[in-house]
Order: sequence, then structure tokens, then C-alpha cells
Amino acid sequence: MKVITTIHELQSNIESLKKSVTTIGFVPTMGYLHEGHLTLAKEARDHNEVVVMSIFVNPLQFGPNEDFDRYPRDVERDTALARNAGVDILFIPNTDDVYRGKQSVTMSVKERVDVLCGRKREGHFDGVVTVLTKLFHLVQPTRAYFGQKDAQQVAVVDGLVKDYFFPIKIVRVPTVREEDGLAKSSRNVYLSQQERREAPILYQSLKKARESIMGGEQDPSVIMRNICDMIQEHTSGKIDYVELYSYPELYELNRLEGEIIIAVAVQFKQARLIDNIIISVEPEEKLNV
Amino acid sequence: MKVITTIHELQSNIESLKKSVTTIGFVPTMGYLHEGHLTLAKEARDHNEVVVMSIFVNPLQFGPNEDFDRYPRDVERDTALARNAGVDILFIPNTDDVYRGKQSVTMSVKERVDVLCGRKREGHFDGVVTVLTKLFHLVQPTRAYFGQKDAQQVAVVDGLVKDYFFPIKIVRVPTVREEDGLAKSSRNVYLSQQERREAPILYQSLKKARESIMGGEQDPSVIMRNICDMIQEHTSGKIDYVELYSYPELYELNRLEGEIIIAVAVQFKQARLIDNIIISVEPEEKLNV
Repeated sequence: MKVITTIHELQSNIESLKKSVTTIGFVPTMGYLHEGHLTLAKEARDHNEVVVMSIFVNPLQFGPNEDFDRYPRDVERDTALARNAGVDILFIPNTDDVYRGKQSVTMSVKERVDVLCGRKREGHFDGVVTVLTKLFHLVQPTRAYFGQKDAQQVAVVDGLVKDYFFPIKIVRVPTVREEDGLAKSSRNVYLSQQERREAPILYQSLKKARESIMGGEQDPSVIMRNICDMIQEHTSGKIDYVELYSYPELYELNRLEGEIIIAVAVQFKQARLIDNIIISVEPEEKLNV
Repeated sequence: MKVITTIHELQSNIESLKKSVTTIGFVPTMGYLHEGHLTLAKEARDHNEVVVMSIFVNPLQFGPNEDFDRYPRDVERDTALARNAGVDILFIPNTDDVYRGKQSVTMSVKERVDVLCGRKREGHFDGVVTVLTKLFHLVQPTRAYFGQKDAQQVAVVDGLVKDYFFPIKIVRVPTVREEDGLAKSSRNVYLSQQERREAPILYQSLKKARESIMGGEQDPSVIMRNICDMIQEHTSGKIDYVELYSYPELYELNRLEGEIIIAVAVQFKQARLIDNIIISVEPEEKLNV
């Protein structure tokens, strides 16, 4: 595995790679790798000749009151994990190389953004699409891998790639979970022991919602209310949102039909956890009148 | 020469081309081709295995009071000219294919824009970088060719490509002129006979400015004043601007040094003409104190 820390070196490596390989899989991360990231890397490994992973804690996607400085970093451990996962190139650029002075052109996300996490994180997805556009041009991947855990991010990236015709396939990889169902996250380390015991309730409430939909429930507000009740009753966390939309468009639904996402965010003392499931709801057969 | 009218067909052509060729030259145009465009095509032809030209009158770069509907179009003639110029693929998409519903991510130009033509064409360059980003991803060129005549456009595109690390070289090609010095433009057809006789004054005033700088003039305001006087005296047009900046940054200068651009825009009855020269001014030798 090659570790590359400058854009210039990455560019010349990719340029020469392009002459001999036809598929590059790309896994963009902010580091502090967990099994979720490594699952993305393994997916990339299975379907591409070359696997590139980036580690870049992107300041532009953190708000002024968010945890940019506190975001966990461990490059040495990440390097070992990436190597074991079969990554060929690990790209760890520094901020000044990625953002060279004032941007002369900015990007702004207008759709799929004023819902879920985007509503409270103004400008967050602007930062995401900005850095991804840079990284996509640098790595020139055939496929880029994203975890479903950040389902809104996948939806926004889907919009970016479709709007601008990036020659890249976006692959959405199912959320990796602890044995008790808790979605893996770099932020789980901030949970207290008590909170850690409560946290699996998020996924349990989503699974229960799925069962209830499969059992015939069609009213989004009933589904969301039941999830809220369950989380409030069994955790000390404060519900940030429980929402239900079409996916990946993220439109509100009056009635459950098609691809839908149910997503939750819960604020614990030192960590805000998110989780979601995406369900395909068969349209009801039309009655013959 | 292949004429392609859908994005889908272009994508599959480029994908298969990428397997056998290593250089693609790209000439984006709004059609109604003149010698300026053909010079770009010839440059592209000389340095690349494949030449792609696009013809797309991009609605997003026209303001509400600009000449989108009136912009001249002649696809049949353009096709013959492109073929003669050695273009391999002529891409003529329609608007609904390039803009598929509401954009979920928008782009906005923040630098190099509140000067020259950009000052009076709010949003114009946002439209330019949006469509170019789409076209760059579709064509995946090695080199893209732009005329120096639209020097601000070249500066903005230079900023776009540098900010986002597009793997594309931007080639700036000198302005092509009529025998009397008038810069070629699709809009020249709107000049009256009298205006057409006056129009070469624009370039003459720029050449005179260059002479004066070479002769030792160092004050930007004197240079600009002389150009204004000359244009006002010898044409019926109304000066829109006469400006002088560093290039390609487009910063104001107190003193002539480095790469500079002098640019003019003059409004005639039915046509607004622009022209510019870029001059390299050697820094004065420092006196030994």
C-alpha cells in the first residue's frame, strides 16, 4: 500500500495508473476507521483493480459549533487497518493543499438538504459536495463507495453525480452494526456506559417500524410517533428527529409507497447518533371498480 | 465526423474511446461558428488524437434581458464547418437533456467576476461554470480550448479548474481577427455598415495602449483614459467599460507590472463588442539605493 500525502503526488500516480488499469474504486473517509469503513474498502476491493481510500477531516463540512477540532484522529492505526483491508493507495492530504486560498467557485446544495441532519447543519452538505468534487477529480474513480448510515449524504451525492454527469458509479453499502444492532460510528466512543446500553434502541425502533409497515400500517405519522415513543421511553437521549421520506429524493409522503427511508437522530450527552432503514413498499394493488 | 445529440450516446462513445485513445481535445461553443471557433478546433486537432466540439446555447448563462432567443443558430452550416476543421465528434445536446429538472447542487463564481463583463451580467459566469462542469464530465477531455477574446471567461474557467482539480489542461488561444483588426464574433453580424467601419477602433486603441506602455507609461488611469478618448472620438458606440487588471486574477493595479489585461466593451445599436489584449510587463529594475 502506498501512502500519499500531497495532491501533486496523487495526480501523477493516478495519471500513470490510468494507463494500465480500467477500474478504480474509491472510499472517501474522515479517518478513525471502523468496520463500516473497512466494509466499504472490501466492497471496493471485490469490484475494482485498484482501491484508493482518502482520509481527510474536511473543515468545510463542520459548522462553527461542531466537533472539527475534537473529531477523533489516529493516522497510524488507520494506515494499518487500510493496508489490511486491501487498500492500494491511502491518500492523506493536508487542508492547505485541498483548499488553496479563497475558492473562486463555490458549490451549494439546494435539494434533499432541508430535512434530516441537513436542516440543522447549515452548509454541511455544501462542504461535502465541494470536497467530493475535488476528490473525485483527483482520484478519477470508476466507483465510489458510501455507507447507507449517512443516507442523506448518499442522496446528496446521488444528486451531485446526476446533475453534473460525473462518470462515476455511486455504490451504497448497507450499514455495519455491532452485535446488538448499534450502527458503527466514530462517535460511539463518546457514549457513556449507560448510553451505550441504551443506544441499540434506535435500530430496534426502526426494525419495529418495518414490521409494522409490513403488517399493513400505511400512515407515516403513526410510524414516526411509535418510534419517538420507544426511543423516549428507553433512552436518556434527546430525540433530534424521527422522519420518513421518499428515497433518494427525500420528499415528504402522505402515504407509504415506493422506496422510503425512516431515519432517526438522537442526541446523547457527548455524541449525536443517527440511524436509518430504507424499505421498499410495494404499491397496493388497485381494486377493480 | 459523428454528430451526437443525446448525452446517453455521447457517454457510451466516450467510454469506448477512452479504451483506445489517450488524448481528447475539447472545444465547447454556442455554435454559429466563425473563424475563431475553427482556430480552436485546429489547435485541438494538432495536439490530440480525438477532437470533440459541442454546440449548446446555454440558457443558464443568459440574463433575462439578454439575447438567448435571438442568439444566432445555424446547425447545418456549423456541421459542415466542424467537419472541415477536423472535428471527430460534434455534440449538439438539447436543453432538457443537459438540465434535467431542478438542479440539486448549484455553482457560483465568487472571484474574478465583479469586473469587466461579469459586473453587468449577474449570474452569467455561474451558468458558464455549471455547463462546463457538466460538459467536462461528459467529454472527459485532456485539453479544453478557449479563445482569449473572452478573457474573463478563460480566467473564471482557470479558477474553476484549479479550485476543483479537474484533470484538464485549459488552453488559451489568441483572438482571431478580421483583416482590419476587428475581433471575430457571432455578434458582428448585428453591426450596421457604419458601425462595422468604426469597430476596428477598439483593437487600435488597445494596440496604442500597448505601445504607450512599452514606451514607459506606468499609470493605469492614463492608459484607460486614452483608450476611452479614442473610442469616443471615432465611434458612435457607447463605452461600457475600459478596464485594466492583473491576469488571470483580475485584481486592480496601481502600477503596471506582471501579466496584465486591458479590456474594452462597447455597446453599438444592436451589438455589444468586446476586445482585450494581455501584456507581459517586465518589472522595473530596482535601483541600488
